[in-house]
Amino acid sequence: MSKVAFKGSTLLNPVPAVLITSKKEKSVNVFTAAWVGTACTKPPIITVSIRPERLSYDFIKSTGEFAVNLPTVKLVKTVDFCGVKSGRDIDKIKKCNLTLEDSNFIDVPLIKECPISLECKVKQIIPLGSHELFIAEVLQVNVEKSLIHSDGKIHFEEAELICYSHGEYFSVGNTPLGKFGYSVKKVKVKIK
Amino acid sequence: MSKVAFKGSTLLNPVPAVLITSKKEKSVNVFTAAWVGTACTKPPIITVSIRPERLSYDFIKSTGEFAVNLPTVKLVKTVDFCGVKSGRDIDKIKKCNLTLEDSNFIDVPLIKECPISLECKVKQIIPLGSHELFIAEVLQVNVEKSLIHSDGKIHFEEAELICYSHGEYFSVGNTPLGKFGYSVKKVKVKIK
Repeated sequence: MSKVAFKGSTLLNPVPAVLITSKKEKSVNVFTAAWVGTACTKPPIITVSIRPERLSYDFIKSTGEFAVNLPTVKLVKTVDFCGVKSGRDIDKIKKCNLTLEDSNFIDVPLIKECPISLECKVKQIIPLGSHELFIAEVLQVNVEKSLIHSDGKIHFEEAELICYSHGEYFSVGNTPLGKFGYSVKKVKVKIK
Repeated sequence: MSKVAFKGSTLLNPVPAVLITSKKEKSVNVFTAAWVGTACTKPPIITVSIRPERLSYDFIKSTGEFAVNLPTVKLVKTVDFCGVKSGRDIDKIKKCNLTLEDSNFIDVPLIKECPISLECKVKQIIPLGSHELFIAEVLQVNVEKSLIHSDGKIHFEEAELICYSHGEYFSVGNTPLGKFGYSVKKVKVKIK
């Protein structure tokens, strides 16, 4: 391979594309974020970067609460719409026919059409430039029943989740390429 | 959909799975990270969370420099191996037959077999628990020539990048489901 150099930019790809719900007084808003990531295992912490101009920035900064809802291939158009349009101009939940359902640990509803939802509480906000980094603890996760098999394992590959890469949305393969640790797993040989 | 509640955990999926190189004195190390994310557009900033027990934590904390290399489907076994094994016990670059190439802004080599590499400089480190969050500016990006078409656009979908979801590695679809903004794009009608 031979590489061409460009000035620094956000070329980390692919990244998640998620629908984030927030609530201020009686208003519920949803917006799409791709500048999100897992930050810590114990305690479970994620980061979400938000532009201060966003309505959701105002909502989340005021209440310190939000939910991350993982969308599926079927919801790609909604994901795009909620990333382009502002809750100041339009009720995106209504326009996109999204159904809200109660959460347990926060006063923010989840999106029923998303198979996985994370209830989050902000711990710290760090201004970085165009975006501010919200560091938040995941208090509870909610997983669609049919993705949980009888052995208790959650089958994410059946959820048809999406990702975002350099301005476009993509599906995720439905056959794992490998499992964490598979490269060093010893094959058990049975000697009869 | 009907959801089952679990205690908070790192269920944000899919996330990137990247090979991170770092260098201390004359030693170069590589490790796999999935707890990474884009944090800011201007300036371009990413986050990488690292466990303090990691050799790469020591390297990156000492020098404040690292490179993020985006691996492909062909490198999945290497990605897994570099996430499981420690540079304290084995020279992972050598063992995985990775080729190092020079970077421009940092004193850390890039991985030639990865089509995209980001040269990063740490700005801030935030301890969170099991992991510490490294907030770093992307000083330069390096992109495999053949991915850049004659119109200047970088075709990430041709790179065969991978992602990580709930303990397994997955490919990314090679046909975009949509382009950012497509949900509100007006169709131009030509009147003859």
